[in-house]
Amino acid sequence: MNHSFIILCEFLIREISFVISLRPKFNPVQFNILYADKESKARCGLIQTDHGNIETPIFMPVGTLGSVKGVHHRELVADIMARIILGNTYHLYLRPGLDVLKQVGGLHKFMNWELPILTDSGGYQVFSLADNRKLTKDGVIFKSHIDGSKHLFTPEYVIDIQRIIGSDIMMVLDECAPYPSDYKYAQKSIALTHSWLDRCIDHFNATEPLYKYGQALFPIVQGSVYKDLRIKSAEYIANKNCEGNAIGGLAVGEPIDMMYEMISVVNEILPLSKPRYLMGVGTPVNLLESIALGVDMFDCVMPTRNGRNGMLFTSQGIINIRNEKWKDDFSLIDPDGTSFVDKTYSKAYLRHLNMNKEMLGAQIASIHNLAFYLELMKQAREKIKEGNFYTWKNTMIKQLNNRL
Amino acid sequence: MNHSFIILCEFLIREISFVISLRPKFNPVQFNILYADKESKARCGLIQTDHGNIETPIFMPVGTLGSVKGVHHRELVADIMARIILGNTYHLYLRPGLDVLKQVGGLHKFMNWELPILTDSGGYQVFSLADNRKLTKDGVIFKSHIDGSKHLFTPEYVIDIQRIIGSDIMMVLDECAPYPSDYKYAQKSIALTHSWLDRCIDHFNATEPLYKYGQALFPIVQGSVYKDLRIKSAEYIANKNCEGNAIGGLAVGEPIDMMYEMISVVNEILPLSKPRYLMGVGTPVNLLESIALGVDMFDCVMPTRNGRNGMLFTSQGIINIRNEKWKDDFSLIDPDGTSFVDKTYSKAYLRHLNMNKEMLGAQIASIHNLAFYLELMKQAREKIKEGNFYTWKNTMIKQLNNRL
Repeated sequence: MNHSFIILCEFLIREISFVISLRPKFNPVQFNILYADKESKARCGLIQTDHGNIETPIFMPVGTLGSVKGVHHRELVADIMARIILGNTYHLYLRPGLDVLKQVGGLHKFMNWELPILTDSGGYQVFSLADNRKLTKDGVIFKSHIDGSKHLFTPEYVIDIQRIIGSDIMMVLDECAPYPSDYKYAQKSIALTHSWLDRCIDHFNATEPLYKYGQALFPIVQGSVYKDLRIKSAEYIANKNCEGNAIGGLAVGEPIDMMYEMISVVNEILPLSKPRYLMGVGTPVNLLESIALGVDMFDCVMPTRNGRNGMLFTSQGIINIRNEKWKDDFSLIDPDGTSFVDKTYSKAYLRHLNMNKEMLGAQIASIHNLAFYLELMKQAREKIKEGNFYTWKNTMIKQLNNRL
Repeated sequence: MNHSFIILCEFLIREISFVISLRPKFNPVQFNILYADKESKARCGLIQTDHGNIETPIFMPVGTLGSVKGVHHRELVADIMARIILGNTYHLYLRPGLDVLKQVGGLHKFMNWELPILTDSGGYQVFSLADNRKLTKDGVIFKSHIDGSKHLFTPEYVIDIQRIIGSDIMMVLDECAPYPSDYKYAQKSIALTHSWLDRCIDHFNATEPLYKYGQALFPIVQGSVYKDLRIKSAEYIANKNCEGNAIGGLAVGEPIDMMYEMISVVNEILPLSKPRYLMGVGTPVNLLESIALGVDMFDCVMPTRNGRNGMLFTSQGIINIRNEKWKDDFSLIDPDGTSFVDKTYSKAYLRHLNMNKEMLGAQIASIHNLAFYLELMKQAREKIKEGNFYTWKNTMIKQLNNRL
């Protein structure tokens, strides 16, 4: 090779390296508020992710193990109109396990699901699997519900796992304290949660997504039902300036007014410009009240779990399909329902399926309830845009509480 | 009123009555053979019912309680391509019960299912619920598996129930004898079955459909594995000249070659011009071999029940999805599969769902297997039309028996 060719090569290598260093980082999650209600704290916004946009307020169907129970993917997308679903770090870590998830290139590919995914961190399992875990300063040791094996979840490891899962929105490791917790316990608990938060953020910043799209990290406000602890926690979290913020440790048995009070206190502090995610809540009424308090994102197993047990949420109120009165009611499940199940199956038929534990009954109720939740969020967004959310919400709440 | 007006009225009433008496009876089930294979007894035909046409050979998904487990109606019609499904008289009698079925106007309306339905008579439950029933000359007394209450099913009552259910094809009450049955037992059993058959036919002829469409009645050949009894029973049944005929009491534990021998013997006698329904059979190989012996209709719980347990039937062979080898096989379930599940979900994902007892796993496997069965029937029809069924069948049988 002659000298000028070598110089040319060196030049090209330098140039290419420079161009590569200038390439845009993976898009982080973006949030813009499009409309703000004047009579409440409700707002209508848009979350942008590399897997698509999400209009808020939004409800996220829960797919703990990478499957929303009883619901096909195409039903989630086309009938329920889900735009983001949830997975659970703890459960996915156990099964299918990290080897499989790494090999396939993350949960989206494993499921063949192209829209956004949020993963809970395992923090809720600190609460729900209280008998099978041990809290230490370093993290949580879980005893697997499958084979009894022990697994240490540190804040750093929870980030690593979620990098492998490849969720669009990752959650920090936290302690979801039980209700009631005494003040001292709750105080210690948020100290632990905050120290874990710092470690999560450090590790999040020190690592990169494994796949070709961005991942955001949401911290979680805790503090049980103590106003001052909630304030302290919300301030701590707000200061981290993450791309979104979550409120955890509610809907764990406390009176409903206390829940709303905590949400209200916390939302005074969490930045307006970031999406707020209320974890694990709740009934349709809870959702509307929380939207009025400035919440943007929700998840809950209620529409699917209660659906499997025969409870249907409708715009006119709640149906217990096991009730004798539906035995010969051959009208469609919900005249206002938006999904295909509402146009196909009758109350009497659904009751028959439920009473006989036929899978199809659980499927129908799950689709109906999820579609209803998503439709309620859509209506809430429209009402916020139209500027009459508050009046609509107060009317709806009366209807939604009816027992049909 | 003047006299001429009264005469006019009398005239009109007579005329109207005459016109009414001339109205066409409800269409019975029609069957036409379109193609007959030259190298085997296979044939391709068309069953016409008031709820639509059915090309034969056909597989009928089983919806015991008016629901094919894990499968939505629209999936049955558009993805699985089912053209007729099964219900079970005994189960539907218990739940939702005759009051509800009568009130709504039959099972089609109860389910909102517009295609044909065939109902088994309860004869199979004589076999499957052997510990909870008592046979008498008059009929069967069942002890309900739900509440222990006792119910007498006579041949006449089974017709009445199926009139209320409104199935397009009704089955006679028979005794499905266990395997093994000694010769004497089998001999007595067909005598009972034949006497019940006569009573069923008498009652069928003495009654009318309750809804505005026709219903056919199929008698059932029994005789255990005794050639002479099968011949006797087939002759008895053939003489009844019903709109279709069924072969029962097989696939109850006898060696497979014995089953084929009995089918062969019986099909020599059952009229060529009527559809032949082999009850409760079987594997894809069983279906192809039985088509070659002249069978037109099949039903079996295997595609759904085995699917729920992780067994997938494919054109390349059988997959046990619980096998470790599929853990990281991210290829689609079945490259030759025709339903949406085959184009959506991978083997590794389906394995994960099955191992975790996620409902979606059972749903996917059920849809895949049913679609495969229906596609196999479609291919069989095409091969019969093309005149190369026999060679194709022999090639397929080798593949279908593979363990993947």
